[in-house]
Amino acid sequence: MNYDRIALIGLGLIASSMFWAMKRASMKVHVTGYSRSSQTRETARKIGLCDTISDELENVVVDADLVVLCVPIGAMGDIMEKIGPLLKSGCTVTDVGSVKCSVIEAVKPHVPDNVHFVPAHPLAGTEHSGPDSGFASLFDNRWCLITPNGADNIAVKRLENYWQALGANVDQLDPEHHDLVLAVTSHAPHLIAYTMVGVADDMKRVTNSEVINYSATGFRDFTRIAASNPTMWRDVFLSNKEATLEVLGRFTEELFSLQRAIRTGDGDFLHDYFSRTRSIRRGIIDAGQDTDEPDFGRPKD
Amino acid sequence: MNYDRIALIGLGLIASSMFWAMKRASMKVHVTGYSRSSQTRETARKIGLCDTISDELENVVVDADLVVLCVPIGAMGDIMEKIGPLLKSGCTVTDVGSVKCSVIEAVKPHVPDNVHFVPAHPLAGTEHSGPDSGFASLFDNRWCLITPNGADNIAVKRLENYWQALGANVDQLDPEHHDLVLAVTSHAPHLIAYTMVGVADDMKRVTNSEVINYSATGFRDFTRIAASNPTMWRDVFLSNKEATLEVLGRFTEELFSLQRAIRTGDGDFLHDYFSRTRSIRRGIIDAGQDTDEPDFGRPKD
Repeated sequence: MNYDRIALIGLGLIASSMFWAMKRASMKVHVTGYSRSSQTRETARKIGLCDTISDELENVVVDADLVVLCVPIGAMGDIMEKIGPLLKSGCTVTDVGSVKCSVIEAVKPHVPDNVHFVPAHPLAGTEHSGPDSGFASLFDNRWCLITPNGADNIAVKRLENYWQALGANVDQLDPEHHDLVLAVTSHAPHLIAYTMVGVADDMKRVTNSEVINYSATGFRDFTRIAASNPTMWRDVFLSNKEATLEVLGRFTEELFSLQRAIRTGDGDFLHDYFSRTRSIRRGIIDAGQDTDEPDFGRPKD
Repeated sequence: MNYDRIALIGLGLIASSMFWAMKRASMKVHVTGYSRSSQTRETARKIGLCDTISDELENVVVDADLVVLCVPIGAMGDIMEKIGPLLKSGCTVTDVGSVKCSVIEAVKPHVPDNVHFVPAHPLAGTEHSGPDSGFASLFDNRWCLITPNGADNIAVKRLENYWQALGANVDQLDPEHHDLVLAVTSHAPHLIAYTMVGVADDMKRVTNSEVINYSATGFRDFTRIAASNPTMWRDVFLSNKEATLEVLGRFTEELFSLQRAIRTGDGDFLHDYFSRTRSIRRGIIDAGQDTDEPDFGRPKD
């Protein structure tokens, strides 16, 4: 059931964490890695990432049973077009992109008939990026969402087993629904955090050193999210345009109603609103998706 | 220079952390505490919070050298009106409120001539509240902002020494400027987080269990902020109305420009914006105001 040879294309946080998680699971597999950037390949070789690092995209995929696209979403279609004709019959192609509809649209036309395409999205990450940011436990108790989109059942099951071996829980979703859910839990929050940090950076009457020193009052949480990989996030927003704009529309509507309550001094409205949001936090902690330690258990000074 | 007797009025996260920080510093001082809620007083007695817990507001303040108002901002004026006539000559009254102009406006008229009023704001907290949420290191390397507003220099210096002994750095600001800076670093981010969590809770097409399970993609950081004390935050927004609305206005303007870039597919604009916000994060880490550990160093599964 396991894969004998896995190719990781793109060697950032997700790919490197996948490799360390495979090592941790003592998986019997040969992993080849490729990155377009020679500097990334050099770092990967230095830290022992992958069993082989290849300088050529073509060499990575020829004998792979599983090819994982770990590049920004905007680059996936082109890569698939290049590697499609080289893939072994029966091989599975998957990806780790944060948006599913646009990835399917860009990748699927280039997938040969004798190759399985099983789109996936591991819901895990940190604000750090690059080949040296990965770690084996990144996917533990996180969810990996599979959007089979008509793929062969056995190929889907095999990929699910693989992700479970890396520590993840798996679930299946329609691509459209995936993109809406992620717009709520990830894409809109990221855009909002980027916006708030941009505003703080831009306020002429408040200096950056004031923002920096006095950030422990809430703002610093936003800066973590807003420190994520700019290329990845540019592609996410351009690829999940409709769902993100829908959620942002609801957000703005709601923000205006809270602003109006502040302006008119409607304390009851504010208090009710602020009480309601506490139960979602409780649910997240009970589901093991966050810690109940104050301030996320940040190291104390 | 130290205070012999300190009265803490209101026994939540800040007051309890102040008490444990005084213990840690082996401060030679007698601390009396008061809370309006009998349940809070009972908890305080059970966990050994304060040297004495008083059932009557009046008894707490009569012989205090320092009275600290640790109640929600909206309650401070009334309390000051009640305790004003009872205060010892030469005593200092301070507060820990997140807004300074409205506190000064509500409290100052009730401060007798022979009493010093030195408004202050320790920039520290967590999403937890109540008498059992405090801990001694809460203020370590955080800033306590003093807005002297014409108070006696010696009284100000004495309060600064006190906060330094609790682990904080101190700085002085104009009340108006304080309120603007905090609107940027704290009040607007909190309102935005509350709003985003409310939207997620309210989206009919996305279930709460989806939001909860898939929250590790960014959303869970917002839920932490949105789990803060509802009464405290209602009062903050009602008290810092103008500065908060000004910052939210700037935020909305900026959000619209990013939404437009998404809609029109302006990837360069997005990428530039997302790159710029990274440097603020770097500054916060270099200033020791947050950890560089991925995901705030959350406990790994």
